[in-house]
Amino acid sequence: MRPAEDVVAALSASGQLWEVAPGLVGLRGPVLGLLQKMEREVTTLARRGADEEWSVPPALSFATLARSAYFASFPQWLTVASHLTVDPACLQRVAAAAEPAAELGGALAAPEAALSPAVCYHAYAGLAGTTFDRERRLTLQSTCWRHEGDRFRPLERGWAFTMREVVCVGSTDAVSRFLEQGQTWITGLARRLGLPFQLEEASDPFFAPTARGRALLQRVKGLKRELTLPIGGGRSLAVASLNDHELHFGKAFALRLPDGEPASTACVAFGLERWLLAFLVQHGLEPEAWSEALASLEEEP
Amino acid sequence: MRPAEDVVAALSASGQLWEVAPGLVGLRGPVLGLLQKMEREVTTLARRGADEEWSVPPALSFATLARSAYFASFPQWLTVASHLTVDPACLQRVAAAAEPAAELGGALAAPEAALSPAVCYHAYAGLAGTTFDRERRLTLQSTCWRHEGDRFRPLERGWAFTMREVVCVGSTDAVSRFLEQGQTWITGLARRLGLPFQLEEASDPFFAPTARGRALLQRVKGLKRELTLPIGGGRSLAVASLNDHELHFGKAFALRLPDGEPASTACVAFGLERWLLAFLVQHGLEPEAWSEALASLEEEP
Repeated sequence: MRPAEDVVAALSASGQLWEVAPGLVGLRGPVLGLLQKMEREVTTLARRGADEEWSVPPALSFATLARSAYFASFPQWLTVASHLTVDPACLQRVAAAAEPAAELGGALAAPEAALSPAVCYHAYAGLAGTTFDRERRLTLQSTCWRHEGDRFRPLERGWAFTMREVVCVGSTDAVSRFLEQGQTWITGLARRLGLPFQLEEASDPFFAPTARGRALLQRVKGLKRELTLPIGGGRSLAVASLNDHELHFGKAFALRLPDGEPASTACVAFGLERWLLAFLVQHGLEPEAWSEALASLEEEP
Repeated sequence: MRPAEDVVAALSASGQLWEVAPGLVGLRGPVLGLLQKMEREVTTLARRGADEEWSVPPALSFATLARSAYFASFPQWLTVASHLTVDPACLQRVAAAAEPAAELGGALAAPEAALSPAVCYHAYAGLAGTTFDRERRLTLQSTCWRHEGDRFRPLERGWAFTMREVVCVGSTDAVSRFLEQGQTWITGLARRLGLPFQLEEASDPFFAPTARGRALLQRVKGLKRELTLPIGGGRSLAVASLNDHELHFGKAFALRLPDGEPASTACVAFGLERWLLAFLVQHGLEPEAWSEALASLEEEP
């Protein structure tokens, strides 16, 4: 096993990974081919588990986030998109400045969208007001943005990263079955990739003031489980999560069962770059070793 | 032929297209399957035309944009990413607000990255300081953001959209050959998709004050050509462009030929959602008609 720090250092040294800006990395060379293979595998798995696929833009309306109670829960993570003002004088100052970036602060319009902190909010917003005769499962993937402080680590904790999700809306029973299946998807994938895993009860880092209460409740009720993989030095990394939202989004977005009661929702989420990192930690940086570890993917669907 | 407005209205009415926020749309249902097919075709074409592929994050550093002279050229388009401050009092105000979005303005840290206005800037920045013994061609795709006023039209002009590019760095001759080939790629694709096209001299909407001069020069020198497709009502839409940057990026990013002189660069860019729209305008909204129009893709690579 090669610790994550060594893996990242070796990828950087060979030019296969580079940092474009803090928390934003690019990939090229053999490691990109590997990421694409793993992404195809996750995509296939997600499509098999879903009835339909959605393609969503990389940002959400503030109204959707507010309806999700996102601002009360995780404001510390949020990243927003602001375009420049249309005022020609402001634009002129930016255009003519010796250091244009320093002039941007005064030239921005009010932010108009939030860069998606998770992809599943798109699902609840897109289904708002629906009554569900039967459960519905959909899959979607997008770049997500979370600013968890400045302690970025390439592939492990980026400002932007790639999330694939499968979302289920339906009765409590349907959602329970979905989460049981989701557990077999993520543990099965880890097995096929030859990655030793653990399943752990987890909680989200809710923002104060009710944060501790909510996190505790989430843990006690077993609402969030994470699949973690070792990344060396005694550390492990959550690469997938199983999330039971109970009636939270059903109530917030008027997702209803035929009897008029709010539907339950749940999601299974995959962090693609983290799977890549854990794979490299386990199997090293030689493409020959990857082929061996990936051989089972073609055989065993 | 069904005008673009009708196509978008029909897609919206059937739920296959929806607007998440101004200029940001999602796709689902048969039209998403069509987009994915067209995307695979463009990706295959681009990979065949390139020696290597890069995966890039969705944002750029301000330093890269400044080095590209972007701020002097196109500041009116720029969208930036700003995360929230880490100040707990500010976060608390957002978390507790009745209208959290209204509190965001006072809770933002200074913007730290620019959402990519085009994907090829990543190439020049990632190759900075390189000497090129032979030409190098690479392909990359990303969501790009351009705020061209508030007159968004779904699939035609979004705030965010998907761009695939092939970039060439090398001698003037190599870059000329590349652009000639690029022209056969884009015209060939239009032909295979059964889309009547025109190739037009074009110019970028440079920002004042030297804007008119630069745009005129670009047009006179034939540095930008666009492939346009009809979208009904007498309108046409640029779906791909051939861009000769001459020595601009070679000088800016120290891309050098073996004799120490700056290298030439050029790119071929595809706007994926625009290809989709033009295809729907031409072939209608019935998947049966699509299959017929796409049949040649499998036969004739």
